[in-house]
Amino acid sequence: MKNLKTFIITEKGGFRHHIIPTVEMTIDLPAKFKGIHMSRLVESMTEVISDEFSVQHSIEDIQIHILEALQKKHAFQRGEIKFDFEFGYTSKTPVSNKRTWEVCDISATTIMENSCSNVHDVSVKVTGNTVCPHCLANNGGLTHMQRAIGILRVVGSTDQIPSYGSMIEVIENSFSSKTYSLLKLEDEVHVTKQMHENPLFVEDVCRNVLQHANDAYEDRQLEMYAGVRSLESIHKHDVIAEGRIVTNGM
Amino acid sequence: MKNLKTFIITEKGGFRHHIIPTVEMTIDLPAKFKGIHMSRLVESMTEVISDEFSVQHSIEDIQIHILEALQKKHAFQRGEIKFDFEFGYTSKTPVSNKRTWEVCDISATTIMENSCSNVHDVSVKVTGNTVCPHCLANNGGLTHMQRAIGILRVVGSTDQIPSYGSMIEVIENSFSSKTYSLLKLEDEVHVTKQMHENPLFVEDVCRNVLQHANDAYEDRQLEMYAGVRSLESIHKHDVIAEGRIVTNGM
Amino acid sequence: MKNLKTFIITEKGGFRHHIIPTVEMTIDLPAKFKGIHMSRLVESMTEVISDEFSVQHSIEDIQIHILEALQKKHAFQRGEIKFDFEFGYTSKTPVSNKRTWEVCDISATTIMENSCSNVHDVSVKVTGNTVCPHCLANNGGLTHMQRAIGILRVVGSTDQIPSYGSMIEVIENSFSSKTYSLLKLEDEVHVTKQMHENPLFVEDVCRNVLQHANDAYEDRQLEMYAGVRSLESIHKHDVIAEGRIVTNGM
Amino acid sequence: MKNLKTFIITEKGGFRHHIIPTVEMTIDLPAKFKGIHMSRLVESMTEVISDEFSVQHSIEDIQIHILEALQKKHAFQRGEIKFDFEFGYTSKTPVSNKRTWEVCDISATTIMENSCSNVHDVSVKVTGNTVCPHCLANNGGLTHMQRAIGILRVVGSTDQIPSYGSMIEVIENSFSSKTYSLLKLEDEVHVTKQMHENPLFVEDVCRNVLQHANDAYEDRQLEMYAGVRSLESIHKHDVIAEGRIVTNGM
Repeated sequence: MKNLKTFIITEKGGFRHHIIPTVEMTIDLPAKFKGIHMSRLVESMTEVISDEFSVQHSIEDIQIHILEALQKKHAFQRGEIKFDFEFGYTSKTPVSNKRTWEVCDISATTIMENSCSNVHDVSVKVTGNTVCPHCLANNGGLTHMQRAIGILRVVGSTDQIPSYGSMIEVIENSFSSKTYSLLKLEDEVHVTKQMHENPLFVEDVCRNVLQHANDAYEDRQLEMYAGVRSLESIHKHDVIAEGRIVTNGM
Repeated sequence: MKNLKTFIITEKGGFRHHIIPTVEMTIDLPAKFKGIHMSRLVESMTEVISDEFSVQHSIEDIQIHILEALQKKHAFQRGEIKFDFEFGYTSKTPVSNKRTWEVCDISATTIMENSCSNVHDVSVKVTGNTVCPHCLANNGGLTHMQRAIGILRVVGSTDQIPSYGSMIEVIENSFSSKTYSLLKLEDEVHVTKQMHENPLFVEDVCRNVLQHANDAYEDRQLEMYAGVRSLESIHKHDVIAEGRIVTNGM
Repeated sequence: MKNLKTFIITEKGGFRHHIIPTVEMTIDLPAKFKGIHMSRLVESMTEVISDEFSVQHSIEDIQIHILEALQKKHAFQRGEIKFDFEFGYTSKTPVSNKRTWEVCDISATTIMENSCSNVHDVSVKVTGNTVCPHCLANNGGLTHMQRAIGILRVVGSTDQIPSYGSMIEVIENSFSSKTYSLLKLEDEVHVTKQMHENPLFVEDVCRNVLQHANDAYEDRQLEMYAGVRSLESIHKHDVIAEGRIVTNGM
Repeated sequence: MKNLKTFIITEKGGFRHHIIPTVEMTIDLPAKFKGIHMSRLVESMTEVISDEFSVQHSIEDIQIHILEALQKKHAFQRGEIKFDFEFGYTSKTPVSNKRTWEVCDISATTIMENSCSNVHDVSVKVTGNTVCPHCLANNGGLTHMQRAIGILRVVGSTDQIPSYGSMIEVIENSFSSKTYSLLKLEDEVHVTKQMHENPLFVEDVCRNVLQHANDAYEDRQLEMYAGVRSLESIHKHDVIAEGRIVTNGM
């Protein structure tokens, strides 16, 4: 089941979030069945979500509850539920100190196997920028820069998954500069200076995301992936870099 | 300014909605200016939205307030603000009478000219289906059917714009059948029968949307457009139909 | 009919192009008909395209032939056919003088009314960049730059429509710099310098497109529109500008 | 490097194809390097493609040549190149026997590791349909049907990869019915009858793709994946099924 949309309210760390996720739900098909009772997938979700309106949970909790509710209606060995959604958060402009609203994309999946262990697979995608160090060094201080998109993906058990907010922070601090929906002239000057003082290839940003994630989550057990894509200002194509790191929580 | 995302809470007719719209905002450029003070567009929006958290409004009201706030910061003759967002609503399955969650796409634009008159341009896009009458008549009662997407667009002044809920209803009642995120077997049989009893070309659905909109809004002054797109099950391509009607509110 | 894909070979100005357009075809529905004979639309196109493999034409000619073929099968007052496709062309790197392959997006529509007059509506979309003049002037020579997308749309009769190549040139010359799929270090340094010497707001690029189009096509009768979108490197959102000009061919 | 577009002519089995692929190219970064010489990736491709205009090859051959050319310019342990493109082919209507033009999506990747072994990863995506057997059995012969999208992905060495044409055939024969860009009334009646005689869940189509691929390629060594997505006509969401099979060529 794919491309289903629904409406969810969550609360984590005192913040309430209202999201309309695009939902994908799959279960393995037991050998004795010809087809899946599709309506039971939707029913499980609808029931849990209706309940959730009173008792607020994290996305990961809601996904576990939906899979548990489904387990009672329709036996499966391996079930998987994914939410793709936009996630709003606030920030402050760097000099004028005004409040801004930012939005990033999150993809959160829970996999339940043998009705006992749950694995979560969460990707956060945030927009920032890169500045070419090679050109800066060969061009009397002038260089080109561009919008870039950074992804941090973490895979781990329920109590190991970090908050979305901390994952956003890890990615934002890995760019030449973070970006803002609002910038007054003094902010714009500040951001531009910072970009020139912090020139980074797309490969550097990718290494930064992995390094910062490792620093932030070294006491957790997580498999982590980073991916960065730079929308080159001097080319029509994008430049990408990818990497992987594992923390063992020790 | 395009592709900006933000976070808004609205209340209309007793229902509260939380949306993350993609925002597009444009103003004409007075001849004496070389460029627009871009940050003032974002600031106007951020200020109004922050206020809105206490006093809830309709989308159209929020858009007027943003343009009014902008007018004070940055003179313009013609300003335009568009929100694209997903809108969640509930429905009931036709036989088993279970509650379902449905989501449609809405695009809402407000245009302010000469700081006095406001025009709204609102499009609602809902998924339903079509059933081929031509094939049904030539094939012993067998035919092909497919998912279809219907759009109703209305253009008018603030007090003439109908509620999103009534626009959704106009479109849903124009298909061979409305569709549901959840259907038990008895519902599925009911919907399938209804589809065969109500075979409609994409042109028919388009005429229906215009007719139902005319019936529902004949006492309003609106320019209305309908568009329907059928994702043919026997072709790789889609089939479309478009039409227009004007009500003069008399 | 929408979203149909097909395969076409054209020849114009000695260059042969192979394209797979996404096709949209619509005709008005005569009052006496309940539905359109959909297969006649596809048949008209398939017949003309099969023929075209021997005799090569421009996209505009092919579209006229398809509408003429359709006119014989299925009466209509107003018929419209649109091709969306990718168009490949070659360029030279600015210093190292190497050949590069570039690709842009083209949307070409032909409208036939009352089986006599044909109007073409052609949009060409090319990627370049913008450099912020405001920040450059306030920041000791440092500024931010970003990828930008420029569109030139022309509407006119068959003999007035310019070549795609000249439309691409008009747009590319309107950016702070054109972009290339390949750049050696010496080219990159050159492009970066040129960008700093030619800082342009998105509004400036839009005015440039209109000005250059007016200069290039002042002896033609065309209605022309320009649109530019800048993928800001310091914001998560885009900045846009739009304009319009009419040449009367005198 | 991602999202680069270029222009390629290939010839396989006597058929010449002109494609504009979207290209993605990645190499691992040797520990001693801070960044990749990006221009060498594009140069390798441009050189090979320019040559290819005289000597025609399969997509897989072109990709190997590009990676070999890159290997000489820029050492790497693991290099990967992906082309996403639209692929046109002809078909015949089932009763009226008219020629039709069909287009499907292909994603072809070549991975070269340690400059010796090449692995290809090719996905073909074709549009067809599904018909609900459960509803048909419970509703007096009436049921719902919808457009569906089938994917066959094969992974193997250069001499094991099947032709795109045979992969298209495997997928098309797995649906309730294949679909056509053109259908006269007699064809439409035929297709609709066939759909009712061959009702298939999305899970059935997925099993069919794997079974037909196994039958067609049992003498090859391939890892194969199938994925099917049904654009339900009675729901707003899609239904999906996925599976995997390995042939050992014996």
